[in-house]
Amino acid sequence: MSTLRFDDIYFPDGIASDPGTLGWMQGSPPPVDRRIRFQDGRFLGFPQIRWALSHLRELLPTASVSRGSGAASDLGTAADTRLAEIDQLRFDSLDGRSYHWAQSLADTYTDGIIVLHRGRVVYERYVGALKPQLPHACFSITKSYAATVAATLMYEGVLEDSRAVPYYLPEMAGSAYGDATLRDLLDMQVGVAHSEVYSDPSTQFWAYARAAGFCPRAPGDSGPDGLHEFLVRLRKEGTHGQAFTYKSVNTEVLCWAMQRVTGLPLPELLSQRLWSQLGCEEDGYISVDSLGVAMGGAGLAATVRDLARFGELLRCDGARERRQLIPAAVVDDIRGGGDVAKLAKAGYALLTGYSYRNMWWVTHNEHAAFEGRGIHGQRLYIAPLAQMVVARFASHPIARSAANDPITMPALIALGRLLEGR
Amino acid sequence: MSTLRFDDIYFPDGIASDPGTLGWMQGSPPPVDRRIRFQDGRFLGFPQIRWALSHLRELLPTASVSRGSGAASDLGTAADTRLAEIDQLRFDSLDGRSYHWAQSLADTYTDGIIVLHRGRVVYERYVGALKPQLPHACFSITKSYAATVAATLMYEGVLEDSRAVPYYLPEMAGSAYGDATLRDLLDMQVGVAHSEVYSDPSTQFWAYARAAGFCPRAPGDSGPDGLHEFLVRLRKEGTHGQAFTYKSVNTEVLCWAMQRVTGLPLPELLSQRLWSQLGCEEDGYISVDSLGVAMGGAGLAATVRDLARFGELLRCDGARERRQLIPAAVVDDIRGGGDVAKLAKAGYALLTGYSYRNMWWVTHNEHAAFEGRGIHGQRLYIAPLAQMVVARFASHPIARSAANDPITMPALIALGRLLEGR
Repeated sequence: MSTLRFDDIYFPDGIASDPGTLGWMQGSPPPVDRRIRFQDGRFLGFPQIRWALSHLRELLPTASVSRGSGAASDLGTAADTRLAEIDQLRFDSLDGRSYHWAQSLADTYTDGIIVLHRGRVVYERYVGALKPQLPHACFSITKSYAATVAATLMYEGVLEDSRAVPYYLPEMAGSAYGDATLRDLLDMQVGVAHSEVYSDPSTQFWAYARAAGFCPRAPGDSGPDGLHEFLVRLRKEGTHGQAFTYKSVNTEVLCWAMQRVTGLPLPELLSQRLWSQLGCEEDGYISVDSLGVAMGGAGLAATVRDLARFGELLRCDGARERRQLIPAAVVDDIRGGGDVAKLAKAGYALLTGYSYRNMWWVTHNEHAAFEGRGIHGQRLYIAPLAQMVVARFASHPIARSAANDPITMPALIALGRLLEGR
Repeated sequence: MSTLRFDDIYFPDGIASDPGTLGWMQGSPPPVDRRIRFQDGRFLGFPQIRWALSHLRELLPTASVSRGSGAASDLGTAADTRLAEIDQLRFDSLDGRSYHWAQSLADTYTDGIIVLHRGRVVYERYVGALKPQLPHACFSITKSYAATVAATLMYEGVLEDSRAVPYYLPEMAGSAYGDATLRDLLDMQVGVAHSEVYSDPSTQFWAYARAAGFCPRAPGDSGPDGLHEFLVRLRKEGTHGQAFTYKSVNTEVLCWAMQRVTGLPLPELLSQRLWSQLGCEEDGYISVDSLGVAMGGAGLAATVRDLARFGELLRCDGARERRQLIPAAVVDDIRGGGDVAKLAKAGYALLTGYSYRNMWWVTHNEHAAFEGRGIHGQRLYIAPLAQMVVARFASHPIARSAANDPITMPALIALGRLLEGR
């Protein structure tokens, strides 16, 4: 199909909205109606987003997540026969449409995707603005990266998950986080007056994005300029530890505590603990606020291959080349998941049976998969029982994952079955 | 000495103004009086500049200049005996003060410096905010990079230096550049109404910086937003080809023509032609305007080592590992220099006997040195007859090179003599 309907609006599909074909940001200068400027505030709108998520650093300030000076690991390349086999894989979407895998890429607005089976590439595709060397927005997969490092610091005793936030950040005593523990943050069980609604620019989510420097501030905007200034103003609503309520600001508080305790900025922590250890091919980067503070809830950008390398580390219980980079107990804890009943109460219709732990989504499905999920279609899917890792970047017109899950979820199950020969 | 006087103002020297010691941008968050924000417009002021030039990408949008996936070249490391020998090198500054080399670093506000002799490191130091892995602002050495690529494209016949600018950029027909040739651009002999005065924020230079996205725009600023919009408005003043008048906007026009002809953005050209060929250790980056156009006159950032690698390529006549990356004729042309009489008329008191060719400064001194020079102390000094390359980054309180030349120039001559054993 060449158009797709979401929220009663028809959008051209992934092929029809290719930003190169449409001429977005092509030419010096690009045509007036094909320009994307940060200050216009429309770079996350459709179809501009199809270009922007592969070019974030050209739109806003960023800090490098250094890969160090070592050689990149060899993931192999996909054999043509394997590519063809996967392209032809058939499955039905949750809303009953019959798909070939190849067609599902266009309908999920995929920018780039890689599949590892037993650690080797069996499938890899790039579409539109994304190239193998270009980092792409991870959005909330950033949380999974940051929380994996946080959980490691807890294993090492540098942080304690039972401590209340002000133990590490005294200035948060009067905020919503005054009596929230790090565990509450990690499992998104904080009672804080803050809405995570993406579709309406007047919500608190976008005030957070403006404070983080991810969205432009209007002239005269007197709201908080900087993440820390934003976070200290958040007020309590409800009870901590009771219900799952997904709020990106919780990750920011967690990252702030990590940075305070270690004395290292988040990009440096990510580099030391992960990027420089994983055989990454390219430096990653992360958006920063006006004071250089990284946006730990959503700001990371990585290449498809480097995202897959992180997934492969988790699939291999935190070890790589006989070195334990992340404690196996940390990976076990994530993979085991959290409280299914609590996530059920949050009412995600498509995530029945899922749980949430340490900022990972745990499917409890037939492949024991767990995943990082980011708005507009970002996904890092780790399926231990299929020995499979899938890293996918996308620029879907709709932010919420529920817009692509009806295709993505059965596609990933079908692929896991194919690779394991069932 | 711990303070230095310039323009009747006393500044703490390089050691006393170390941004780490002073606490600039240290802590999460940094103390209120130690914060550096792009929007404040003071990041190029002193002492903020001492931190900012090593952290530009955290302040403004940038494009990557990719090093590709190859291994970094081995430059070696400086032997302690050699380091000590150079630190103790004595010379007199042009204003008659006696120096050890080591002390000259503090008095030139050096952030990082490397010396190659016959292609191997004999000296390397990092001070303050700069680290070996961190790219630092090159300022106008950016011009030397860009023009070397432009001259190569001319050698290949892709561009012709005798053509007028509108041959490549028809929209420039009505501007100052309507009858200027690319040769006029390359040798800074354009008659254009534009001032290159750095010390006064009301000058056209800062309007150019704002258009390029390198400095903040005040709310309601109705000036050009973007380099191309700025350049088409420039008007003629005087005659082309007659006099040397140094104006960064000429480089921007040259880069625009290169990009139009090749269809490649400047960062991609720099990556393809230089960064990915030179065994660079880190990706470089370059600041971009609100439309993603790189600032070819001043926006590049590189590590000290990667800057030195570029210098070594020029010292070796454009060849590296038996591959001719830049035609020898292009390097010969640069090294041969331009019209000494024309530069003399421009009245640079310290540059007697110098000439300017293809956006390089040619000393015609005893080591036949030529150099890239950037404001606030950036220097890439290539001395073929001493088989020496010096790459230095600094964050001097005064923009103009004349503030550090009285130390830098005799220091480099003395070092060349030391290394060649004279």
